[in-house]
Amino acid sequence: MAVIVPFESPSNATIDELVELVAADMERVNATILSRTGSDVTMIPEVANHLISSGGKRLRPMLTLAMAQLSGYSGEGHIKFAAAVEFMHTATLLHDDVVDESDMRRGKLAARMVWGNEASVLVGDFLFARAFELMVGAGSMTALEILARASRVIAEGEVLQLTRAHDLDLNQDVYLEIIKAKTAELFAAAAEAGAVSANAPPERCRALRNYGQDLGLAFQLVDDALDYSGDSETLGKNPGDDFREGKATLPLLLTMARAGSGERDFWVRTIDRREQTEADFVRARDLMRQTGALESTLELARGYAAGAKSALSEFGSNPWRPALEDLADFAVARTA
Amino acid sequence: MAVIVPFESPSNATIDELVELVAADMERVNATILSRTGSDVTMIPEVANHLISSGGKRLRPMLTLAMAQLSGYSGEGHIKFAAAVEFMHTATLLHDDVVDESDMRRGKLAARMVWGNEASVLVGDFLFARAFELMVGAGSMTALEILARASRVIAEGEVLQLTRAHDLDLNQDVYLEIIKAKTAELFAAAAEAGAVSANAPPERCRALRNYGQDLGLAFQLVDDALDYSGDSETLGKNPGDDFREGKATLPLLLTMARAGSGERDFWVRTIDRREQTEADFVRARDLMRQTGALESTLELARGYAAGAKSALSEFGSNPWRPALEDLADFAVARTA
Repeated sequence: MAVIVPFESPSNATIDELVELVAADMERVNATILSRTGSDVTMIPEVANHLISSGGKRLRPMLTLAMAQLSGYSGEGHIKFAAAVEFMHTATLLHDDVVDESDMRRGKLAARMVWGNEASVLVGDFLFARAFELMVGAGSMTALEILARASRVIAEGEVLQLTRAHDLDLNQDVYLEIIKAKTAELFAAAAEAGAVSANAPPERCRALRNYGQDLGLAFQLVDDALDYSGDSETLGKNPGDDFREGKATLPLLLTMARAGSGERDFWVRTIDRREQTEADFVRARDLMRQTGALESTLELARGYAAGAKSALSEFGSNPWRPALEDLADFAVARTA
Repeated sequence: MAVIVPFESPSNATIDELVELVAADMERVNATILSRTGSDVTMIPEVANHLISSGGKRLRPMLTLAMAQLSGYSGEGHIKFAAAVEFMHTATLLHDDVVDESDMRRGKLAARMVWGNEASVLVGDFLFARAFELMVGAGSMTALEILARASRVIAEGEVLQLTRAHDLDLNQDVYLEIIKAKTAELFAAAAEAGAVSANAPPERCRALRNYGQDLGLAFQLVDDALDYSGDSETLGKNPGDDFREGKATLPLLLTMARAGSGERDFWVRTIDRREQTEADFVRARDLMRQTGALESTLELARGYAAGAKSALSEFGSNPWRPALEDLADFAVARTA
């Protein structure tokens, strides 16, 4: 899968430094998550913990913690906001898997395959509500506003994707609008809420929000590339899910544009009508490689990662900056 | 359907007086609802308005408005809270119809039958998020806390119902716990949030919360009775939905307890295994009438309606009190 480890980007970028910097706070976030998934209704912690404890990287709460600490915060509020951000993310994943009819998530059966779609919808609702309860407890109305807005924007992005998913002529700008809403918005809001809860000055909050947004865009572009170039063991889910669902992501849009009108019937059948055989995914992947569509997708991701790093330029020298720069590189270099 | 219009309760109780008292405020709530379901993603207002403009009685936002005005409020916040309460309610209905696989709602096709389960889940998420955005804009952290808690309790009630729905030996206390969470909590929170946003003293906020909770319990008990005694034209949905879904509501639990062990096989087949013919619903309804289970359910509802009215006893003489008493009577006397 050499194509997804581009030469220009440090392929050994890791998030180890950032993980270490936030370790003490993250332990408190994890304790908060554990206690606030609790409910007398025993199915709720079962479903929630199936996903929450399945080895996600917790990048989003990490951003909240990092931005709060980078802004010199010493209170308690950022812990609650970070836990709330992870709850919002988990709620979205539970609902996404229902909407996309996904079977696998993070190398395990999706919750809906174990407990059913109904439980996934309702436990998602529970986690979403819990997130707001936590945020009320954290006390910053401005940070609450940022995350309430984010949850609305995410839902808009998901609906936009739902309505345009199989559109063979989807404009690339609309694709970017979708991933900005459904993915980058929560990265942006998680970062901004951390800075805001630390009472950082407005221009710093904006810069850290921009970092989060560009990071999220890079992250999603690479996700979309990995769905064609990754392998199932590393990914923890089946590659080709997007193709099978007929989801018009950037790698596919670029391939369709470049492969020419001779392939039109192939796309109409596989993406528009979703009539596919296993060989069709292989053919799509071959076309993708021939047209350089994956490389172009990653090129765009690298651009956003660079944008994220440049958003930190005003922050002078401190231990957080190189760690956050590594995170941006990691978003592009990762294989899962 | 004489059985659902009990003699003890004024069968001509209406909500007309309350509707008139809140009319001016409700117009502003409706304008807020209309503007805040708006989105560049056109499917969102389509799905949301299909349900929101389908002739629901807006009892819950009415409670918020009434309690704020009863408490002498003259600001703007209660309009936003009332609209948020209706959004939360609508989001819950959208998700409920997916979970229950319902075909009809308020005399129209359920949104999921028109736009699919996916759209119903995601537009529900949008409305839920919008509710919190609105509440942030209203500014009262305490009222926000009450409604965040309510949305979490509602989800817990729904999951509890999901896990225990087909339990033939469901304890009646657990049934009451379920309807307290999934229905009465939003009535209670809507009323309390209105009082709190008006800065009413704590004991008055508690009393108005109690009114809402008892009203909600009466309301749900009558709903569960109507699912066996109502007719589809008046109800706007098919009677017998609960039976077909094998949902152990109070009328059914009482019937099973009173019909004796001779009928056990019938319940195991129809409720536990959900193997039913159309004749089974008729038989269940006959057993329900013979055992007086519907009348007992309504008796309990009348008790809660009386409780709701007594919660208003400290409020002296004012135009709101008789209107709210009428609402409690209406909850029991209604046929749809």
